[in-house]
Amino acid sequence: MNFESIIESLRYADNKLVMIDQTKLPAKLEYVSTDDYRVVVDSIKRLVIRGAPGIGIAGAYAVALVVIESLTLTSEKRQEFISHALREISSARPTAVNLSWAVERLRAVIESHPGEITLELAEKLKTEADSILREDKDMCRRIGEFGADLAPANPAILTHCNTGALATGGIGTALGVIYTLQVRGKSPKVYAGETRPLLQGSRLTVWELARAGVDVTLLVDGAAGALISSGMVNMVIVGADRIARNGDTANKIGTYPLAVVCKEHDISFYVAAPSTTFDDSIESGEEMPIEERSAEEVVQVMGASLAPPETKVFSPAFDITPGELITAFITDQGVHKRP
Amino acid sequence: MNFESIIESLRYADNKLVMIDQTKLPAKLEYVSTDDYRVVVDSIKRLVIRGAPGIGIAGAYAVALVVIESLTLTSEKRQEFISHALREISSARPTAVNLSWAVERLRAVIESHPGEITLELAEKLKTEADSILREDKDMCRRIGEFGADLAPANPAILTHCNTGALATGGIGTALGVIYTLQVRGKSPKVYAGETRPLLQGSRLTVWELARAGVDVTLLVDGAAGALISSGMVNMVIVGADRIARNGDTANKIGTYPLAVVCKEHDISFYVAAPSTTFDDSIESGEEMPIEERSAEEVVQVMGASLAPPETKVFSPAFDITPGELITAFITDQGVHKRP
Repeated sequence: MNFESIIESLRYADNKLVMIDQTKLPAKLEYVSTDDYRVVVDSIKRLVIRGAPGIGIAGAYAVALVVIESLTLTSEKRQEFISHALREISSARPTAVNLSWAVERLRAVIESHPGEITLELAEKLKTEADSILREDKDMCRRIGEFGADLAPANPAILTHCNTGALATGGIGTALGVIYTLQVRGKSPKVYAGETRPLLQGSRLTVWELARAGVDVTLLVDGAAGALISSGMVNMVIVGADRIARNGDTANKIGTYPLAVVCKEHDISFYVAAPSTTFDDSIESGEEMPIEERSAEEVVQVMGASLAPPETKVFSPAFDITPGELITAFITDQGVHKRP
Repeated sequence: MNFESIIESLRYADNKLVMIDQTKLPAKLEYVSTDDYRVVVDSIKRLVIRGAPGIGIAGAYAVALVVIESLTLTSEKRQEFISHALREISSARPTAVNLSWAVERLRAVIESHPGEITLELAEKLKTEADSILREDKDMCRRIGEFGADLAPANPAILTHCNTGALATGGIGTALGVIYTLQVRGKSPKVYAGETRPLLQGSRLTVWELARAGVDVTLLVDGAAGALISSGMVNMVIVGADRIARNGDTANKIGTYPLAVVCKEHDISFYVAAPSTTFDDSIESGEEMPIEERSAEEVVQVMGASLAPPETKVFSPAFDITPGELITAFITDQGVHKRP
């Protein structure tokens, strides 16, 4: 394989954001194409587009779409429209830091041109979003190289959720490491946790790795204990949605038990994430807002009912892995013990 | 609630074994009724009837059905037919010790009447199977009492898989403790892991506990780490399929990570099991055969396809929890630190 053959999760062309509809995978490869920021917000909420870096990039382009739409309003109404829309975008999902980070970066461009809500400004915002996308691609590649450097000779890697091309603008974070190993001819053996409730592991990770010719084996999340304790993997790599100053890491629900089992068996547990995922404004995981998802996602799968109706459900989207359980952070700026 | 209102998973009447078809729950409450031991074997394999004690009881009645059927053969063919059929029953599922234990107990009745394959023998076998069922009911009640005695004042309990009436001939093992707490008016707050791949938690445990008025909340298996680390439960109770002399315990896949997370947070981790689950013939978990289930169970849910076809799957039905991670064993003979 080569890096160019890896799929792209989103692109922006002709003033439209085009995103793979990830809710339809793996059955169908369909795209959502829109010039309406509200559709982008809805796509982020419904996980049409997802992954901390992915929603950051989509959010950035959404800001450009907001400013273009504001030009259809009278000039005195534009500022309020933009403020309101940016709040909507920022709050589409609360846990990943990248989304609000990207919106703030675009807001800074708007604020550096006070009183000038023009098509030229919209063009500058599009250019800024392009930069975020290009930087994300670069960060993914660097994460991939740093991570591949520290993998053992015969890499057998467990991962969780989807942290690949479908979660970023580039080759991914944890999966970026795996793709880089594959390009280097190291033939990594990959184990993917299915990642209930939304099955990003089985639906997305298995799909994109198999498509790229990577040797991937699927398991239910509960089977990771048996996998790790029986010595079948020599490293675990996951992504991150937000990392606090002390290294506490919010990531997809089910990450924390993997870190605890790795500690029990002295297996390396890595977090691969771009620098944009580090939130220096908070000291620890206790300050992170954790999104609670709906009961339906647990009680139903693809329309099939798994439990009695009205079942009460506990469904946080993320859990917090304490920094001390993380062997190292693989970032675009190198490998660090703590942020 | 009272104990009499709890559903029965199987009964034997008019030379037929009648079992709830647990593959149809929670959508439909249907029964399989048969006088053919092959249907019982198939029911055990397909998890129509399941749970270590449950398949032991079903296997015992299957032996009675074998002997009744053998009476339709010429007398010289009976012994070979019976030997062959008992092997089939014993090997329907390999991990739980109760199935082969029950078959051996019935075989001893046959062998104590050499050369006498008669309707009277069949009647004795039915009586022996009735004893196993009645003993199981008694053991469940005693496990429930011992377990309820050690629960804290406001029990908040995480459990895994299904260990209730649907898994036994009585009120269950881990769920027997929960039912007993409910009957005592302790209003336990119960959290049930959904238990992928076959969803015994969401389909069966939630169904039977809700039916009995117990306060139950469902979670995906990966969310147990967040649940335990956030202090929402004060004990974990699971069942067992086989327990070695050193306390190593085979139980439904996903049990072991719960025990490791409990250790990390100093939460009590109990195994509730009848004495028949203790296998004194083996020293440790390393000697236990672990059943590997089919890829389809992971890749498909209720006919919906979750991953690309031809996906490779790692799907052990059970994992091994080391004896040293188990706070205590709640058995019908009392609570023990180690077997």
